[in-house]
Amino acid sequence: MIFGDSKAPCAELVVIGDEVISGLILDRNSQYLGERIHELGIEVSRITTVGDSASIIEDCVKLALQRSEWVILTGGLGATHDDITKSVLLKVFECGLKKDAKVAGMLEAMFQARGRGREVPESVRSQCEVPEKAEILYNEKGTAPGFKMLKGKSILFSLPGVPLEMQYLFEKYVAPEMAGHGNKVFLHRLIKTTGLTEADLWVKVGSLEAMQEKATIASLPSYLGVRIRISVLAESKQEGEQRLDEAESFLAERLSRYIYGKDEETLEEKVGDLLREKSLTLATAESCTGGLIGHRLTQISGSSDYYKEGFVVYSNQAKMDRLGVEPRLIEEFGAVSEPVAEAMAQGVCRVTGADIGVSVTGIAGPSGGSDLKPVGLTYIAVHDRSGTHCRKFIFTHDRVRNKERAAQAALNLVRLKIQEEPGA
Amino acid sequence: MIFGDSKAPCAELVVIGDEVISGLILDRNSQYLGERIHELGIEVSRITTVGDSASIIEDCVKLALQRSEWVILTGGLGATHDDITKSVLLKVFECGLKKDAKVAGMLEAMFQARGRGREVPESVRSQCEVPEKAEILYNEKGTAPGFKMLKGKSILFSLPGVPLEMQYLFEKYVAPEMAGHGNKVFLHRLIKTTGLTEADLWVKVGSLEAMQEKATIASLPSYLGVRIRISVLAESKQEGEQRLDEAESFLAERLSRYIYGKDEETLEEKVGDLLREKSLTLATAESCTGGLIGHRLTQISGSSDYYKEGFVVYSNQAKMDRLGVEPRLIEEFGAVSEPVAEAMAQGVCRVTGADIGVSVTGIAGPSGGSDLKPVGLTYIAVHDRSGTHCRKFIFTHDRVRNKERAAQAALNLVRLKIQEEPGA
Repeated sequence: MIFGDSKAPCAELVVIGDEVISGLILDRNSQYLGERIHELGIEVSRITTVGDSASIIEDCVKLALQRSEWVILTGGLGATHDDITKSVLLKVFECGLKKDAKVAGMLEAMFQARGRGREVPESVRSQCEVPEKAEILYNEKGTAPGFKMLKGKSILFSLPGVPLEMQYLFEKYVAPEMAGHGNKVFLHRLIKTTGLTEADLWVKVGSLEAMQEKATIASLPSYLGVRIRISVLAESKQEGEQRLDEAESFLAERLSRYIYGKDEETLEEKVGDLLREKSLTLATAESCTGGLIGHRLTQISGSSDYYKEGFVVYSNQAKMDRLGVEPRLIEEFGAVSEPVAEAMAQGVCRVTGADIGVSVTGIAGPSGGSDLKPVGLTYIAVHDRSGTHCRKFIFTHDRVRNKERAAQAALNLVRLKIQEEPGA
Repeated sequence: MIFGDSKAPCAELVVIGDEVISGLILDRNSQYLGERIHELGIEVSRITTVGDSASIIEDCVKLALQRSEWVILTGGLGATHDDITKSVLLKVFECGLKKDAKVAGMLEAMFQARGRGREVPESVRSQCEVPEKAEILYNEKGTAPGFKMLKGKSILFSLPGVPLEMQYLFEKYVAPEMAGHGNKVFLHRLIKTTGLTEADLWVKVGSLEAMQEKATIASLPSYLGVRIRISVLAESKQEGEQRLDEAESFLAERLSRYIYGKDEETLEEKVGDLLREKSLTLATAESCTGGLIGHRLTQISGSSDYYKEGFVVYSNQAKMDRLGVEPRLIEEFGAVSEPVAEAMAQGVCRVTGADIGVSVTGIAGPSGGSDLKPVGLTYIAVHDRSGTHCRKFIFTHDRVRNKERAAQAALNLVRLKIQEEPGA
């Protein structure tokens, strides 16, 4: 537990919507708010999710106001939801409605701009009616305004459920207010690794004693690699950043080559940066990954500068026709083999003129395996003018994840190839 | 509101974990449970998410037991979490621990099989200690057993937070018990469409009056298409399925060609089924989608039967070298143009011998646009022996979504090409 004994102020979230509670949509708002509020030094103590039921919402809001300094509601403000949140607020805060001229003006302007005729639809017009006791959070991104209301020592914010609008109003109105109230600064940083299991990673890191006073370090394993979260609760942002830097250096010394990035940085971004830095080009030859490596590389804007070309060579014929893999290699070793992976990586460089070629051939599953070549068996080769390296993997997930793991491992081998050859 | 006035029994979820409440991980368990419990005819009234704080968890569990017939806890059972949920259960149910020999045996067998030595680690051994008053939910998928405990008229289930383990224990122990208690059957079906906006879809559907008594019909728009959810609350499964069928026929008559599948079915699966059915093969020529279409096609096991080959031809040179696109077309019309898209689709058929070729060329963004050719401009062509069809799109999202929309539209055009030529 990070915050249990601190005297940080406390926030609660109330998430409103039948579509959430019945599992029809996945609630991502709570994650966004949980993370942002934590960053602002405020502890989130509870998140309560309820359907569109006025009595249950009322009960939740009242309880939350008794317990917590900050109460954030999301959802139930749209015209399609019968404005259920608004009517609950009128009861809890014991007030009526008033018309807000600025909201009315914004709605008219919005509908004129959309060219839907001059009239604001009847269903939307009710959005101008706001609780008398509310301060209005003007919503430039949609039709539902948010509200700020005070009760005793508590501040309530009611935000729409549409993520874009919720985030906009949170960042514009709620976060600045919270930033002034948190008594500490909570900061965190993600260090991203791949190629090590969680257990092996901790063996390499060794004792955390030197870091114990400075930061909390936690590992988050996934099938694409282990992320390490460093978090600090500091007196100031400056002090916090310094402690994060120290912890990051501590980890970098111990894990060096396994770390590919931090925070939002992706492996394809890192590979792209390295290729650009060294003025190198890359080509891909994918069998079982089916185009996923190319897809990931081209998620990055400007990837045409270094990603030369890709081949999805699913069949043996395509491996021979497109990349010049010799038929005898396939006959002798099979399509899923080290010699074929190497020939694919070499072939894709030869055919395209790229500096680096990466190839993947494997059995993604669920069918196609044998005793000698089980499902998940995958060979990944990287070729450049210094030579060809091939690695064998056996992935043990389902088809979709085996493809993802193979693409991740392939991008990582390209990264290592570039990073470990400073002269290239 | 679907269930507001029914007298259905009521369930609450309590989600436990600092990692959830602080936004470090996205809680997908609630969605899974919300949907499954609804399907079993039981209303989920609240989901409360709390951190690893014993006093808050205790408070939540007690409140939930007072309010609801069914209380499901997830999380806080792992050895790393200091077994906080278990210690709360001891307090709430006023009992001590006992050792469960079957759990102990399972743990020993599990660690022996993993080859981690014969010893169960000290940290894991505490999992054999279970609340005296609990019925044990034996976990074949992990080290933490679940618990079933009774209080007054309420039944509490405590499940681990790891999704795989949670789902396993829910389906094995909880769902069968719930199935016998729901007084109605809640069923739903998703109808998946693409190629129509939500507004246009409802114009085509027209009045829902004929369906009003039979089913609730709701639309769920996304940038890849609109899904329509049909839901019914019925006296029996048979009656419910019949009403779902009626509503589905009603929609199929009105939306025919826009519907590509239902429930879990994906567009790539549908395309694969159609290709296999007609013994046709497909090849892809991707520029801005970078391999995403190939990746999606190869998500389906057995796709090598019909997916012949793919080219990621990001550069002009690759379009010419690989697919024989004439340089003068690129010079005259530019790489992002109808003639080039058509030449790519024709070229990929010629080079690979596939029956159908699909090509995409576009400006994914955020850079690379101009007044004449804005970001998002995308041409998609489909070629077969009957001819070549090209469609122009202007996608208005960010790079990642523009790529996804282009891949979706390309797969959909392939689907339509096959479906509309019964003689092919």
